[in-house]
Amino acid sequence: MKRSPFAPETLASLPPIEGVRLAVAEAGIRYKNRKDVLLAVFDEGAKAGGVLTQSKTASAPVHWCRAQLAHGRVRALIVNSGNSNAFTGMRGVETVLAIANIAASAATCAPGEVFIASTGVIGEPLSPAKFEGVLDRLAVEAEPDRFEDAARAIMTTDTFPKLATRQAEIDGKIVTLNGIAKGSGMIAPDMATMLAFLFTDAPISSDVLTALCREHSQTTFNAITVDSDTSTSDTLLLFATGAAAKRGVPDITRIDDPELAGFSIALHALMLDLALQIVKDGEGVSKLISVHVHGAASAAAAKRIAMSIANSPLVKTAIAGEDPNWGRIVMAVGKSGEEADRDRLAIWFGDIPVAAAGMVHPDYREAQGAAYMKGREIDIRVDAGVGGEGQAMVWGCDLTAAYIQINADYRS
Amino acid sequence: MKRSPFAPETLASLPPIEGVRLAVAEAGIRYKNRKDVLLAVFDEGAKAGGVLTQSKTASAPVHWCRAQLAHGRVRALIVNSGNSNAFTGMRGVETVLAIANIAASAATCAPGEVFIASTGVIGEPLSPAKFEGVLDRLAVEAEPDRFEDAARAIMTTDTFPKLATRQAEIDGKIVTLNGIAKGSGMIAPDMATMLAFLFTDAPISSDVLTALCREHSQTTFNAITVDSDTSTSDTLLLFATGAAAKRGVPDITRIDDPELAGFSIALHALMLDLALQIVKDGEGVSKLISVHVHGAASAAAAKRIAMSIANSPLVKTAIAGEDPNWGRIVMAVGKSGEEADRDRLAIWFGDIPVAAAGMVHPDYREAQGAAYMKGREIDIRVDAGVGGEGQAMVWGCDLTAAYIQINADYRS
Repeated sequence: MKRSPFAPETLASLPPIEGVRLAVAEAGIRYKNRKDVLLAVFDEGAKAGGVLTQSKTASAPVHWCRAQLAHGRVRALIVNSGNSNAFTGMRGVETVLAIANIAASAATCAPGEVFIASTGVIGEPLSPAKFEGVLDRLAVEAEPDRFEDAARAIMTTDTFPKLATRQAEIDGKIVTLNGIAKGSGMIAPDMATMLAFLFTDAPISSDVLTALCREHSQTTFNAITVDSDTSTSDTLLLFATGAAAKRGVPDITRIDDPELAGFSIALHALMLDLALQIVKDGEGVSKLISVHVHGAASAAAAKRIAMSIANSPLVKTAIAGEDPNWGRIVMAVGKSGEEADRDRLAIWFGDIPVAAAGMVHPDYREAQGAAYMKGREIDIRVDAGVGGEGQAMVWGCDLTAAYIQINADYRS
Repeated sequence: MKRSPFAPETLASLPPIEGVRLAVAEAGIRYKNRKDVLLAVFDEGAKAGGVLTQSKTASAPVHWCRAQLAHGRVRALIVNSGNSNAFTGMRGVETVLAIANIAASAATCAPGEVFIASTGVIGEPLSPAKFEGVLDRLAVEAEPDRFEDAARAIMTTDTFPKLATRQAEIDGKIVTLNGIAKGSGMIAPDMATMLAFLFTDAPISSDVLTALCREHSQTTFNAITVDSDTSTSDTLLLFATGAAAKRGVPDITRIDDPELAGFSIALHALMLDLALQIVKDGEGVSKLISVHVHGAASAAAAKRIAMSIANSPLVKTAIAGEDPNWGRIVMAVGKSGEEADRDRLAIWFGDIPVAAAGMVHPDYREAQGAAYMKGREIDIRVDAGVGGEGQAMVWGCDLTAAYIQINADYRS
């Protein structure tokens, strides 16, 4: 698989988070000679929050995590790549329970304190035997400084591991936020993305963690699309070890706690960083696309218009072909079903006014657009023309022959 | 452009329809050495009905046709390819009015009795000067037996002309239905398709024609998708010359007239024939896909699930790659947002049971699916598993590298 042209030259270096240790192994689930299982173990008192896919055919691990989020206690996280344990019937449910038991024994906790995520092929049974012995060993080996190993172990068609870190202050004391994510195709997250795991040492309650994930998902993981296809396994989990409490960081148990402001901003930045890394590793990507829609009837309308543009195969192929084909953007606005005024619509490529007042801008010259399209990052801005306050920003990528090659061959 | 593998070996031979004459010309709108303008002239008393795109950025000709459908009288139809006169502002509206005036003079009728459709590039001004002189000549040259010429003149990226004919009985007397259509990309019609023009000699009122178009669109033109992108110019018009009244065919002025039954069935068959020809000429098509969803909560739910499957890039690329990747069908059901029971869902490829009771069917072997995928026509059947009466059938095509090539180069 060719490496994405947007792969970072150097990976983010993630500091340890007190209260969590990680380890990875080759369990031979599908890939050969590749780490495919991650275990994260948490000290007692850690909390989990998160959001999960709204897919009606969500995987057994998704259902399991949803059930455990009700209490929000966490002592272990198991993630495997190569098999998503999705659409595997009662056997899939039994597999999840078996993995939870194996992990609980390894981490000396209750099975309900184990979170599980699986990614890879849909519809093939996943044998819990793959995890036996392996998790015991990983629990012993786990170390705080293994985030890069962890990010690599959860990859499928990803061409680079996705890592990000931020710091924030709560009550004047520094807390750390680390995050890893995977995802490259089947990316049009619905309440979360393929897989993203965030870690912090801040002492924050489970319901606040979930509320933060839900709020910030809308403008980060839920604002990206590679191919409009929503996974059965989308999982975003945020773990708070609470270890910073020892340094005097106060417990946060309310979403409206003013001490949360800086943390919330840092969390949003972390999530956006990871979400954009996913788009930058979109299957077959050659250009990164941002779409900013304003002047729409509502924020929701603006987002649907923006997604209609970012998901349009004709817009995406035009950009792949470096064709400044703004007529297809008009088409995509029109098909969104949202209110738009054809005769007041305006379009920009970067800072170049392309269309205004329902037709091509009088100053626009095709050569300007053609030159702009040579760039690697294409920024599209649209005024929906209805004079509303609604705006939204989404990110996507172009559609190339490499996407076809990857997906006509890879069994996901 | 490579000819679609589904192009018919011989084209349907359309008989004349009394009361309508056709002629085509090279007006040099965009293409060189190619007929790009069609004029159809109707004898006095002809009626028009139809449905038009729901796009919020619909073209000036679409708005014009919608206005004329209010009275439903027709004496002329002008269609051009190469320029859609969409998103051309006030100038586009003036162009439509100018074309209507030129045509009205040529056909000696009122401008409001002229229907206009344009297809091709979006956002470029269309000069009415291209039509001056041309329409006068065409009105003189027009002949009843020019349907194949007409079908060719309205093509854009189409690789074959689309023609169909049917007969029906009204009060024991034969009436004829002819139809032509175009469309190959930007096909996910919303109330109609790119361009389709149907003709009959039956004496049927305008509102009945429109009602018939609306009803049958749902299971024909609105049940196909090439690329999920909805055109700004979708136009379906049904013209009734009424010439058969001279042979004693009674006037039909009510949608519930029992004499309409046979005509309605023939019209549905004609529309489905043309709709499938459009899919068979889908840009870059190598496989034809039908999706039949049953056991859904409602017909609308079934259709949304079916469209979610037929529009999924991952399902379409898997089929292009001859990969029996039924996990992606599960994914597409899940993302549709419609009620589905993951643990009762069942999937078939043709007659092969692939999945049942929420997991792979115990008798299914990958080799069966792989052999099935070698075929040119792939039939997918899904039981949504909620035990409802809702069902729907839609048609689509695979997504190949040729689609990317066509759309990274062609300016539509």
